[in-house]
Amino acid sequence: MSGIITLLTDYGQDDSYVAAMKGAILRLNPRATIVDVTHAVKPFAVLQGAFLLDTAWRSFPVGTVHVVVVDPGVGSARRAIAFRAGEHLLVGPDNGLFTFLTEPISELVDLSVPPEASPTFHGRDIFGPAAARLASGQPLGELGTASSLMPKRLEEAWASKVGEAWRAQVLHCDHFGNVISNLPLRSLARITAVNGARVRTVETYEDAQPGELVALVGSSGRIEFALRQGSAAQRMHTSPGETLLVA
Amino acid sequence: MSGIITLLTDYGQDDSYVAAMKGAILRLNPRATIVDVTHAVKPFAVLQGAFLLDTAWRSFPVGTVHVVVVDPGVGSARRAIAFRAGEHLLVGPDNGLFTFLTEPISELVDLSVPPEASPTFHGRDIFGPAAARLASGQPLGELGTASSLMPKRLEEAWASKVGEAWRAQVLHCDHFGNVISNLPLRSLARITAVNGARVRTVETYEDAQPGELVALVGSSGRIEFALRQGSAAQRMHTSPGETLLVA
Amino acid sequence: MSGIITLLTDYGQDDSYVAAMKGAILRLNPRATIVDVTHAVKPFAVLQGAFLLDTAWRSFPVGTVHVVVVDPGVGSARRAIAFRAGEHLLVGPDNGLFTFLTEPISELVDLSVPPEASPTFHGRDIFGPAAARLASGQPLGELGTASSLMPKRLEEAWASKVGEAWRAQVLHCDHFGNVISNLPLRSLARITAVNGARVRTVETYEDAQPGELVALVGSSGRIEFALRQGSAAQRMHTSPGETLLVA
Repeated sequence: MSGIITLLTDYGQDDSYVAAMKGAILRLNPRATIVDVTHAVKPFAVLQGAFLLDTAWRSFPVGTVHVVVVDPGVGSARRAIAFRAGEHLLVGPDNGLFTFLTEPISELVDLSVPPEASPTFHGRDIFGPAAARLASGQPLGELGTASSLMPKRLEEAWASKVGEAWRAQVLHCDHFGNVISNLPLRSLARITAVNGARVRTVETYEDAQPGELVALVGSSGRIEFALRQGSAAQRMHTSPGETLLVA
Repeated sequence: MSGIITLLTDYGQDDSYVAAMKGAILRLNPRATIVDVTHAVKPFAVLQGAFLLDTAWRSFPVGTVHVVVVDPGVGSARRAIAFRAGEHLLVGPDNGLFTFLTEPISELVDLSVPPEASPTFHGRDIFGPAAARLASGQPLGELGTASSLMPKRLEEAWASKVGEAWRAQVLHCDHFGNVISNLPLRSLARITAVNGARVRTVETYEDAQPGELVALVGSSGRIEFALRQGSAAQRMHTSPGETLLVA
Repeated sequence: MSGIITLLTDYGQDDSYVAAMKGAILRLNPRATIVDVTHAVKPFAVLQGAFLLDTAWRSFPVGTVHVVVVDPGVGSARRAIAFRAGEHLLVGPDNGLFTFLTEPISELVDLSVPPEASPTFHGRDIFGPAAARLASGQPLGELGTASSLMPKRLEEAWASKVGEAWRAQVLHCDHFGNVISNLPLRSLARITAVNGARVRTVETYEDAQPGELVALVGSSGRIEFALRQGSAAQRMHTSPGETLLVA
């Protein structure tokens, strides 16, 4: 184990929810190194969470525990899971957050609700303690019941063909205003419009003219819409989870 | 001591003020584990700070030092204090930030202004070093002068009855737009309106209709106003410190 | 070495870019203590980054490594540098971010592009690993080629006289709405207007009338424009990098 725990949630940073999770982790494992991925996932935007997880977790040392909590369905019947993939450990609700994982998955368990659960216990309170135990070396099998049911994958995670056009989705809008889509890379060469606005396909951000909306394979390895010296997200009036009609 | 120091301020995260405090802590105690609670307290909103402290500190291991700095009254005569409560240590200005503490308080000291104080010394610069010393095991008594004057409690921390109605206050608006109030729990059953808008009392968020403003005891253990699939804070045009007239 | 690495970037906190940098650091140096200064530098605002670095780095223990990445010119010919100043180590692109350093600079190296560079390698990916190696004690000389070319200094970092007036620049707007300028301290006594609006010079924030725009030497040690109980940045409609005409 690396002793590192990463956190990726839709909790925001203006409340004490993230701190409460960190406190719960440190109570069980005072030596854990906790790293925030981001807490700015749009509330309930599971696919944005899946995308951000996909871009972050492989940067960390093997043996890192990654906790991802977006729309956990507090109090619902949805299971909470933990498993091993690519020598890392992943923990979260089984709602599609692990859709983009390509590594083989093993040792998957349904996390048990801990015995200390009280009337004010939240479904989300399962994840921090589970991560703390994993980061201190406790085996997956001790945290719940082995399951052969693989994590849920969201069908809408991939753009679909509609005649000659694509119906795609915004996975994420980054700090620089780039709009990251779930279009397949092979569609790039033929993109000429998005939601009715003209788009030119380029190779790098520098190839765009100031104010020109372009499409390119960005640093995320996905097709992005970008505006040189401006925010494509603002120009396109779009945000994570919204539909893109691409011709 | 747990070696953990939590920070809760109104400094925001866009400046270097928080980093300067962390640097000052690490200079004195390079092994401290520093955890941000939040730095998004509305400037000068002491009662919001008190609420967020109340929801955060008990999650941490015993022996943790909690620093809370909101509107410290730089350069004023207001005292800076540190004390023990519930096997934790708390540090901050004595301006009401500790209003919601219910644990017995002991070993309270008025923090001394350190001898290195210079013309550019800020009142707020006291708190980080005091926390660093406490987290490394230095006794409270060595950081200042013992005092029997308990921390200031703000009267407006609790809603007051006005005839049959309540005059309450917004303690906090969370990331999901829930408006957290200082109404007593016993008032819940009879709430029918807030600031003139109709409200229905429910048991869980799921009991609300989309777009319907409801009142419930939320995850904070307090009465919140919530809007299913929307922001009650935006609907109500309110923010921490503002008045709620509840009928 | 203190084992501490600080990060100051224009990456924002809503993406996984910062986490990817932290992961890369922890892969090489799992014991590093990573502290965020801020990631809210306005995209490409090099002088704002230089100002924030200037206000932050001296608070940390000697032997700390400070990484600053704003507008690194991904893929361009701009060099990436690391050097020693004031018993600290600094790492970043050579684009003016080190303009305000007054300490003697030594052991400057041009960082080598690591051999693992791939087609998706970004210029910015150099900085995290270099910091990780420095924080674990690797000598500067092993990270690149010694150079006698000092870091670039931006001429526009200092306000210039235009007749009797000053043409200044906004270095930063802080969380409280104070507008921090690059005016020389000696200009304070004669300030009567900024961008056409009347300003009064005061000694402390408390000397201002509510709603009155004032100029003073703020906690940053620079001339700030401030509004009591309000945001001078909003009143002045300004942001980092914009011009201030001061009479």
